[in-house]
Amino acid sequence: RGVSPTITSPDGKNSIHINGRVYGDYDFIRADDNPAGNHFNTSASQLRSARIGIDGKFAQDFQYRFNVEFAGGTEVKDAYIDYNAPFTTPFFFRVGQYKTPNSLEQVADDFNNTFMEQAAFIGGTQNNGFGLDRSIGAGTAAESDKDNYTVAFGAFSQNARNTTAAKSGGYQLAARATKAFKFNNTDDELVHVGGSVRWRDLNNQTDNDAVIYRARPFFNNTNRSINTGTLNNVNGDLFLGPELALVYGPFSFQSEAGWNYVDGAKGRDDATGLWGGYMDVSYYLTGESRRYSRGAFRSTKVLQPVTNGGWGAWQLATRVDYLDLNNTSADIRGGQQWSAIVGLNWLPVDFVKLSLDYAHTHVFNGNGITTQGDDNSIDGVAARAAINF
Amino acid sequence: RGVSPTITSPDGKNSIHINGRVYGDYDFIRADDNPAGNHFNTSASQLRSARIGIDGKFAQDFQYRFNVEFAGGTEVKDAYIDYNAPFTTPFFFRVGQYKTPNSLEQVADDFNNTFMEQAAFIGGTQNNGFGLDRSIGAGTAAESDKDNYTVAFGAFSQNARNTTAAKSGGYQLAARATKAFKFNNTDDELVHVGGSVRWRDLNNQTDNDAVIYRARPFFNNTNRSINTGTLNNVNGDLFLGPELALVYGPFSFQSEAGWNYVDGAKGRDDATGLWGGYMDVSYYLTGESRRYSRGAFRSTKVLQPVTNGGWGAWQLATRVDYLDLNNTSADIRGGQQWSAIVGLNWLPVDFVKLSLDYAHTHVFNGNGITTQGDDNSIDGVAARAAINF
Amino acid sequence: RGVSPTITSPDGKNSIHINGRVYGDYDFIRADDNPAGNHFNTSASQLRSARIGIDGKFAQDFQYRFNVEFAGGTEVKDAYIDYNAPFTTPFFFRVGQYKTPNSLEQVADDFNNTFMEQAAFIGGTQNNGFGLDRSIGAGTAAESDKDNYTVAFGAFSQNARNTTAAKSGGYQLAARATKAFKFNNTDDELVHVGGSVRWRDLNNQTDNDAVIYRARPFFNNTNRSINTGTLNNVNGDLFLGPELALVYGPFSFQSEAGWNYVDGAKGRDDATGLWGGYMDVSYYLTGESRRYSRGAFRSTKVLQPVTNGGWGAWQLATRVDYLDLNNTSADIRGGQQWSAIVGLNWLPVDFVKLSLDYAHTHVFNGNGITTQGDDNSIDGVAARAAINF
Repeated sequence: RGVSPTITSPDGKNSIHINGRVYGDYDFIRADDNPAGNHFNTSASQLRSARIGIDGKFAQDFQYRFNVEFAGGTEVKDAYIDYNAPFTTPFFFRVGQYKTPNSLEQVADDFNNTFMEQAAFIGGTQNNGFGLDRSIGAGTAAESDKDNYTVAFGAFSQNARNTTAAKSGGYQLAARATKAFKFNNTDDELVHVGGSVRWRDLNNQTDNDAVIYRARPFFNNTNRSINTGTLNNVNGDLFLGPELALVYGPFSFQSEAGWNYVDGAKGRDDATGLWGGYMDVSYYLTGESRRYSRGAFRSTKVLQPVTNGGWGAWQLATRVDYLDLNNTSADIRGGQQWSAIVGLNWLPVDFVKLSLDYAHTHVFNGNGITTQGDDNSIDGVAARAAINF
Repeated sequence: RGVSPTITSPDGKNSIHINGRVYGDYDFIRADDNPAGNHFNTSASQLRSARIGIDGKFAQDFQYRFNVEFAGGTEVKDAYIDYNAPFTTPFFFRVGQYKTPNSLEQVADDFNNTFMEQAAFIGGTQNNGFGLDRSIGAGTAAESDKDNYTVAFGAFSQNARNTTAAKSGGYQLAARATKAFKFNNTDDELVHVGGSVRWRDLNNQTDNDAVIYRARPFFNNTNRSINTGTLNNVNGDLFLGPELALVYGPFSFQSEAGWNYVDGAKGRDDATGLWGGYMDVSYYLTGESRRYSRGAFRSTKVLQPVTNGGWGAWQLATRVDYLDLNNTSADIRGGQQWSAIVGLNWLPVDFVKLSLDYAHTHVFNGNGITTQGDDNSIDGVAARAAINF
Repeated sequence: RGVSPTITSPDGKNSIHINGRVYGDYDFIRADDNPAGNHFNTSASQLRSARIGIDGKFAQDFQYRFNVEFAGGTEVKDAYIDYNAPFTTPFFFRVGQYKTPNSLEQVADDFNNTFMEQAAFIGGTQNNGFGLDRSIGAGTAAESDKDNYTVAFGAFSQNARNTTAAKSGGYQLAARATKAFKFNNTDDELVHVGGSVRWRDLNNQTDNDAVIYRARPFFNNTNRSINTGTLNNVNGDLFLGPELALVYGPFSFQSEAGWNYVDGAKGRDDATGLWGGYMDVSYYLTGESRRYSRGAFRSTKVLQPVTNGGWGAWQLATRVDYLDLNNTSADIRGGQQWSAIVGLNWLPVDFVKLSLDYAHTHVFNGNGITTQGDDNSIDGVAARAAINF
């Protein structure tokens, strides 16, 4: 849960925990052909995340989580209640704003992901991709640590940040299922397989049925490198995302793909060619294993923290990430890019992480909106100090 | 106080409690004559409120409360210190930003009001009405649970959100007195009578002495239905608000009126015709009573919470609400509206509430600013999931 | 630490404390020659500060502090982690956003400063001066209560609020050293000497190497009285700040100066004439002493709090403050001002302070940007209710 303690009532029925995180980044980024009006070049620091909130339980069977992000503009993130109804166990119910159940990397707490930024197709809050995001909605899910499976389903409106502007925002339906196979009766040898689906209905009278897909060159503190621009006349889109991961002692492999089908309206053709994906391997030099539970990676337990005179946990990792936002038959020319990333993470203790990532991104077949020229490479190196409360 | 626990020091002189609330709404609203540039039609969700803060006591005789709202823009709400000086008991002193002592529905925690939105004349933060609101000021009050009375008086400047723009913001004086008569020596059979007054001085050189009155058609997630536009050349206004309420077991009746007299300046006539009011009845099907204490309704104690295998508390309610913003002799033509509202509330446990409200609003004698046409009806249905921390 | 309690785990290795503060101000300000488009005249209240966050320790040797300001716009303030590595004692390490180690008055918690606003040359968040501010960076420091010294050094980028706009923000190096001499083996008779330095590199391609220096007439809730306007073509600036303070029982003397050398670029001459400083004396009528520890003034311990039937702590103080933003050879004509301030502070209990300050500011040799005329006087009186959590 992070470094801050959980306070529990004597009867164990109520508890409260202050959650949050602070990420301080320094970025040095250079493009080999840096367009004049669209400078990628960066040498600056930023607070990448500064979040605080509360979570806990009450009346035994209810749980809540609420937090607010303050970096890069103020925004409510999680804001939901869970009800673990005894008569529907193992299913529980959730209402409020929370992450739609999509993608292994998206559902995890960012702190427990291997690299500083998510894969390009996921997008998250500020980078967009295929727009996997928190939304206001309700749903149900079942999770089991014993049987190593999860299933989740939800119906959603939009993220709270959008609801002031748009009075009619369509809806989303999303579902995810995962299963882990553990070997040798141990938690650190396992294979995860999973998949998720999301249907977004964008069809409404007032908003011109618009959508946008775009991405940055891995790092956040720079401009976007590929971008479809605003696509009007779209009924909706369908996201499909298979997942595969493996943990074998200190070694881990992780991979996902995401296909996004765009359902055209009013004469716009359907787009079937937008997709992205990644593959990575990582290794703990100091012997730790990535922790996995209920369909997501969790926080690593540091074997020899510096406070015990140890070296902390050291992790080496590399990833290839790809995103294709081109579909000429549907007149979508957002561009394509691949990134090669190498990362080093040091956790002196649990819940504190210093990261150093290098990324080389190659952009091609673009539309001139963001890349000014057909071939462009962007190199960046970034350091982060992160703490999870 | 909500679902989160209060932490108290061993000597009992200091305590802290994390307060807050999250309201997630879904609104479906249709106008029978929906103007092009002023669409009332909505089918969207929003975070209606997402608030967090702290309250507690220190040095035995002092109390504080501080919280911030994050939904629909970030804003400091309560920010005050109370001093319960032993030598002035039962009077205590308050300084900071807090609600001016006006209106039975306004002084209550919203969670404990029967319907999803306040009466139109009250206005609150985003809906305006006669502008009853929190303001920076200081005052004194006495409250007694034993003798069932309250008196309060305060002198105020403006709400903190306004103080950046306006360097000279006039002042407000407000007072309220209430008395409850309990029958049969029980807390759930009582009559509440009360009244409040507020004088706002808007007279200053820099701000053109401007004021605005307006309202939405009950629901918040749509445009305003009646609106005076900006009224210049106003010295100030005087608000008078009588209150009457009754609790008789599971049954409750509640009613208020609000008159607002506008004191014209520089040739503008006085306005005496602006007023609003409401009447409602509510009934707990599951036997609970509305809780009342020290001049305000408090949180209902659920008799059979779902965590004990019960059905929670179910409440049915209906209200008629009226607001008249027309005064032709003073050249104020904001329009008039009445709303009929039916509501159903379900509290599965204390401090969690699911609400379903239907409202029919009829707008007439408008000025064309917001209604485009003399007669317009707006129908809406909304659902809310709410938690109080 | 303020009025809210610290919660510590049974083993003493982890703790959490909710920090924050609320300052409610009322200002009455009049200029003897109030320019039309630049009105200084104010009679209004404001929330001067409304801040909340958490601090604590974890894993024994780590500490964190995180808080957010909500008054006058939302902004992350402190966001850092400390590591007290046993093998480098007495030095500890800090990473994140925190105050650059400059100026006796700047490094203190504002609550413990004698007057309602800092000296003009310091500037702080909204008043600018020479721009002493929190920034994202990393550094090391050593502090000793036993030997009464501090040394600190850090390398910084910018404040998080600036990093969205500017992708290349230069860097800062800052250092400070202090020593206190205590007499008669007591904590309330001491002399503090100290000094700090800061070098800011503003040289980069994208931002036009711009800097601005400016100040308000002591009070915050009015316009700026002197102002260099934006200075382009500047490589950087060097700040030097000597400090001297004395505590002798209830009496205290405090003084600082700040020189700011501007390193011109592209034909702009260097500026050597910008400087400011202040001197003040204060006296506790009720016998308290200002508390000093590790290079900064700390919260006063009230001897006879009102909750024990006492009068609280009463403090009288007066200050002369000066700032010169003119250097004609470098074509910088921001103006000059001096202020005479008289203040009265009442602390009914620890961590609650009511302040009443009067200030007379005289502005001269200005450039017309802010003062419209060569000689102008501004008088103000302000009251504040403050609480520290």
